[in-house]
Amino acid sequence: MRIVVVGTGAWGTAFAKVLRDREHDVFVARRETVDDAPYDEADLVVLAVPSHAFGEVLEHVSGRAPILSLTKGLDPGSGARLSTLVRGRPVAVLSGPNMAEEVGDGLPGAAVIASEDERLATRLQEAINSPIFRVYVQTDLTGVELCGAAKNVIALAAGGVDGLGLGDNAKAALITRGLVEMARLGEACGAEQETFAGLAGMGDLIVTCFHPSGRNRRAGEMIARGASPDKARAAIGQVVEGLTTAPALRDLSRRIGVELPITEGVCSVLDGHPLHELAASLMGRRPTAE
Amino acid sequence: MRIVVVGTGAWGTAFAKVLRDREHDVFVARRETVDDAPYDEADLVVLAVPSHAFGEVLEHVSGRAPILSLTKGLDPGSGARLSTLVRGRPVAVLSGPNMAEEVGDGLPGAAVIASEDERLATRLQEAINSPIFRVYVQTDLTGVELCGAAKNVIALAAGGVDGLGLGDNAKAALITRGLVEMARLGEACGAEQETFAGLAGMGDLIVTCFHPSGRNRRAGEMIARGASPDKARAAIGQVVEGLTTAPALRDLSRRIGVELPITEGVCSVLDGHPLHELAASLMGRRPTAE
Repeated sequence: MRIVVVGTGAWGTAFAKVLRDREHDVFVARRETVDDAPYDEADLVVLAVPSHAFGEVLEHVSGRAPILSLTKGLDPGSGARLSTLVRGRPVAVLSGPNMAEEVGDGLPGAAVIASEDERLATRLQEAINSPIFRVYVQTDLTGVELCGAAKNVIALAAGGVDGLGLGDNAKAALITRGLVEMARLGEACGAEQETFAGLAGMGDLIVTCFHPSGRNRRAGEMIARGASPDKARAAIGQVVEGLTTAPALRDLSRRIGVELPITEGVCSVLDGHPLHELAASLMGRRPTAE
Repeated sequence: MRIVVVGTGAWGTAFAKVLRDREHDVFVARRETVDDAPYDEADLVVLAVPSHAFGEVLEHVSGRAPILSLTKGLDPGSGARLSTLVRGRPVAVLSGPNMAEEVGDGLPGAAVIASEDERLATRLQEAINSPIFRVYVQTDLTGVELCGAAKNVIALAAGGVDGLGLGDNAKAALITRGLVEMARLGEACGAEQETFAGLAGMGDLIVTCFHPSGRNRRAGEMIARGASPDKARAAIGQVVEGLTTAPALRDLSRRIGVELPITEGVCSVLDGHPLHELAASLMGRRPTAE
């Protein structure tokens, strides 16, 4: 396949290597110079750009090749799933527990490819799967995209637990409730519950929350230790999707009437509410049935 | 409450502290001298003993006080859930993401108490819950006990991933499939699926698989690096429940006709099958739908 990868961040770069290892003809474009990419000859366009840039980059992608989105987030303006911004051509999403540095180092991993076009998903599976990077087909596009967006917000909270030094028991409890929260949102949006127990759901969530170098986890840790969100973002020096996604997800949940207490808590801390107070009020609530 | 805690391992000791912090009258007994404990005056007997000793210790517990089991495993001989060994008195089980050292250090945590006797569960919740150690009531005793047993086996495999240096992406994928495997067993045994997504399921599984000092994870890591199971057990110097539970769980799954590929893999490595071959054969399989 002739494949254009847009995005030269850690994941775009690592994924281009996955594609080259399968002997595809890969052209990598910076999103700032996306107009120069040879789209008319491409069989596939892979978008690995920040969520806030997804819609704009898309307008510069000419031709009719299918889009494969690697971006995990929501459209910040509308709260829409990113794949819904793609018009007039097939679209698929790849997601899963894929820390870019490990994939780039050739360590084994697994991902799902979701699309409403099952033939496209299967074709991409055949083109990308290898013994080292295993690809499973998923039909629940909505669920896979919501997982990819929401897990970064939960990871900010998990990093907050790390930053406060509350330990792994508390962090595991938070992540567990985080997945319940993600699945509740998914249910309201028509996603399948199984997706949240799969690679794009639980799998990606736990690696994002536990891997030491995860950006969202690290940002949450810094903020819990007193850094402002802007300072944490600057210190990490790469996109921290959870910071963009948290308010978009909160707004979406309020619009559709779903309670997301962890996401609300993250947003209130990002808005300047003291984290210690929030943690204390959560721990003081009367427990009931699980 | 007057409470006897049997078991002086890490978890029994830490849990006795939780009880004392709630100002209960706590007597801690070594299981070797269990006959000397003042059972006739006890309102509750907490068993925090290895699974292989649970049945025998139980025979020495006189009186009619309810039993609260902290033990995570199966009866090695029969494969029975440990609570089913308790006869003639009420029984409840406490489980969740509770690394003993963190609980002992006074870090916050959460647990579930499950019992077929809902009044007992609620009474124990009221007696044990605190702002720092939150207790939720659960009615799915079967699911909670199966989670506690199976998660240690998955943690051996997760430690194996660590020992082989395969990275956190692969580990997250393994843990995700591990929970699916646990839930499949649970379904066949009449447990509720929600339990596996809760504190005793996913919560306990992820902390057991990621916490650096988790015994089962560490044992798996050592075995992957060439140690025999006996050597790993000796190096850790405490009970490694997964080593006892793995064959009991495999036998149970075969009896009831449920496939547990990770548990089968763990057992075959414990039986001397080379781990590298197993990992290679798993990664070489043709991927399908998730």
